[in-house]
Amino acid sequence: MTSKTIELSLDEIFNLAKASLLKHGANEENADAVANTVTNAERDGSLSHGLFRIPGYIKALQSKKVDGSAKPEIKEVTPTIFRCDAKNGFAPLAHKYSLKPLIEAAHKFGIAGVAIQRSHHFAALWPEVETISENGLVGLTSVSYTPAVAPAGGTTALFGTNPMSFAWPRPGKNPIVFDMATSSMAKGEIQIAARDGHSVPLGTGLSSSGELTTDASEIDKGVLLPFGGHKGSVIALMIELLSGPLVGETFSYETKERDNGDGGPVQGGQFILALSPEICSGKDTSDQIEQFINKYNEIDGVRLPGARRHKNREDNGPRQVNAELINTIIRLRDDS
Amino acid sequence: MTSKTIELSLDEIFNLAKASLLKHGANEENADAVANTVTNAERDGSLSHGLFRIPGYIKALQSKKVDGSAKPEIKEVTPTIFRCDAKNGFAPLAHKYSLKPLIEAAHKFGIAGVAIQRSHHFAALWPEVETISENGLVGLTSVSYTPAVAPAGGTTALFGTNPMSFAWPRPGKNPIVFDMATSSMAKGEIQIAARDGHSVPLGTGLSSSGELTTDASEIDKGVLLPFGGHKGSVIALMIELLSGPLVGETFSYETKERDNGDGGPVQGGQFILALSPEICSGKDTSDQIEQFINKYNEIDGVRLPGARRHKNREDNGPRQVNAELINTIIRLRDDS
Repeated sequence: MTSKTIELSLDEIFNLAKASLLKHGANEENADAVANTVTNAERDGSLSHGLFRIPGYIKALQSKKVDGSAKPEIKEVTPTIFRCDAKNGFAPLAHKYSLKPLIEAAHKFGIAGVAIQRSHHFAALWPEVETISENGLVGLTSVSYTPAVAPAGGTTALFGTNPMSFAWPRPGKNPIVFDMATSSMAKGEIQIAARDGHSVPLGTGLSSSGELTTDASEIDKGVLLPFGGHKGSVIALMIELLSGPLVGETFSYETKERDNGDGGPVQGGQFILALSPEICSGKDTSDQIEQFINKYNEIDGVRLPGARRHKNREDNGPRQVNAELINTIIRLRDDS
Repeated sequence: MTSKTIELSLDEIFNLAKASLLKHGANEENADAVANTVTNAERDGSLSHGLFRIPGYIKALQSKKVDGSAKPEIKEVTPTIFRCDAKNGFAPLAHKYSLKPLIEAAHKFGIAGVAIQRSHHFAALWPEVETISENGLVGLTSVSYTPAVAPAGGTTALFGTNPMSFAWPRPGKNPIVFDMATSSMAKGEIQIAARDGHSVPLGTGLSSSGELTTDASEIDKGVLLPFGGHKGSVIALMIELLSGPLVGETFSYETKERDNGDGGPVQGGQFILALSPEICSGKDTSDQIEQFINKYNEIDGVRLPGARRHKNREDNGPRQVNAELINTIIRLRDDS
C-alpha cells in the first residue's frame, strides 16, 4: 500500500464505526449491527466493505433516506417463508432479525426463505450466508442495486453489479463460500484502475460510445459488462428477478428512479434461501464433502473460494487502515 | 445443414422414439416420458437433446444400467421437501412423479424442493423449470455429470459441464427461462468443432498438456474450462454440491467411478427448487415484470433467453431430422 495507514485494533475499528453512526442518528442496535458488519469486513480484508463504507452510511442518515432507528418487522407468511420489512433501515439489522427464524425453519422443514423489503444493503453478502452455514445449513442470497451493467449484446446499463453469495457448511471448519459480483469487475475496481491509469482486460466494459475498450476511465464513463458474456448476463438477469419482484421490491432501474442520489445505500430487496443437506439428502454428507475438497485441493493452481478471507480472519491483531479514511470518519464522529 | 435430412412430424418423432425404447425393455410409462422429452426438444430445436439421445438411452437399457420399468418413489420428508428415489430409471419419469407434489407444496408454502436420487438424466433442464413456471412458480435446477471441466486455475477435470436452468413465470406468455452449461462450451459442441476443423475462442479449454489453445481437437483430448473464469468456476462448484451431496447423491468424479461406461446416461442426483413470487412478495408482480421486459427488449442487441426455442415451438409442422440418425434409430427399433 502506498498511502499512509494508521494501525487500529478490531475493537477500535468497531468503536469508531459505531460512534460515528450513533453521532448521526443511528440508535444503539442499528449502529451495533452495522459496526459489526464493517469490523468483520476489515477483519477479513474485505476493505471495500469495511470502514470505507462508513461515509456512505452516514450520508444516508443525514439525508434521512435511511431510518437509523428502524426496527425490522418479521412476518411468518407460511411456516417456511418469512417476510421482513426492514422499515428503511440498514440491512445488517434486518439480517439479525431475519436469520434466526429462517435458520430454525430450515432445520425443521429442510428449506426456508426470507423476503427482505425496504432494506438498505451496503455490505458484502458472505456475512448472511456464513451465518447460515455456521448453523449447518446451505445459504444462498443475492441483491441488485442501480443500473451499471449492460445485458450481453447491449450497450445500455440495466442490471446492477448484482452480487450473489453461496455457502456450504463444514462442521468445525470454514464453509465453502463465494461472494461475487456478476459484473466483470466491481464498480469500485474500475474507478481505482481509472484513477491509477491502469488498463483492464478487454470485455470488462464499454466506452460511452458503446465500444469495447481496455481504458478503465472510458469504461467508468460508459458501462460495465457482465462476467462471462451471455451466460453471466442471464445470471445477472435472474438476480434482478430474485432480489426485486420475488421479494416485492424493485428492479435496479426502478431502485435508481426512487433513490435521492445521496451516495448512501439505496433501498432494495433481498431473498435469502436456507437448505438443510441433512434433511434433503437423508444422510450425513460431511465425509463425502471433505473427500471432495481434498480432491479439489490436489489440483495445482486452484484454491477454495473464501480461503483468503478465512486466512485473514485467523489474525486477531490490529489492522492497517487508510489514514485519510480514518481522519474523515473521525471528523464525522466529532462533527458538532 | 449439409447432411441429408428426413422430414418427420412431431407425432412421428414421438412414435419412433417411443417404439425404439419399448423395443429395448422400457415399459409404457417410461418410454412415454422419455419420448415426450425427446419430442419437445426436437420441437424447440434443441437437437442435441432430441432424437440424437435415443441411441444413448438404448445403450443404458441394453447394459441394464437403467431399469426401463422403474417406478419412482416419492417420500414427503417434510411438507416442503420431497425425496424422489428414481429407482435407476430415466429422469423424465422421475420428473413426472416429482413435479406435481413440488408444485402443490410451493403454492401452499411459498417454497419447496425435491431431492432426486438414482436418476439418469440425459436431457435439457428447461422442461422441468418450464413446467414449474407454467404453474405460476419460479423454478431452478441443476445437474452434475462426469468430470469434463477443470476448476479455474487448474488443468485437471473435476466438474461436469454442470448445467443450470431457471424459469420465471409470465401468465399467458412464455416464461423468462435459461438453461446453460457452466462450461465455456458444451462437450458436444467441441466434438463437432473438432470434427469440422473449426477453431474455438481462446479460454474454451486446455490441450492435454494443459496449454490454452484454440484447436478444438486438442481441447477434445484435453479439458474444458468453466465459462467466465473464476466466477463461472465457483458456480460449477456450487452445482457439484447442490446436485450431489445436497440430494444424497455423488459428485461428478464419484459418478464416473460408479458408471459402467456404456455411453448412456449416468446415475446422478438433481435438486429442483420451486418458489411462489406471490407468497414471497405478497403482491401480484406481473405488470412490473412486463415493464421490465419492455425495458430489456428496448436495448439494441439483446434478446430474452429462451426466445429462440419458444419461436421454434410456434411451428407445429414437420421437422427435418438427420437421415443417418433416423436410420440408426429405425434399426434399433426393428432389431430382433
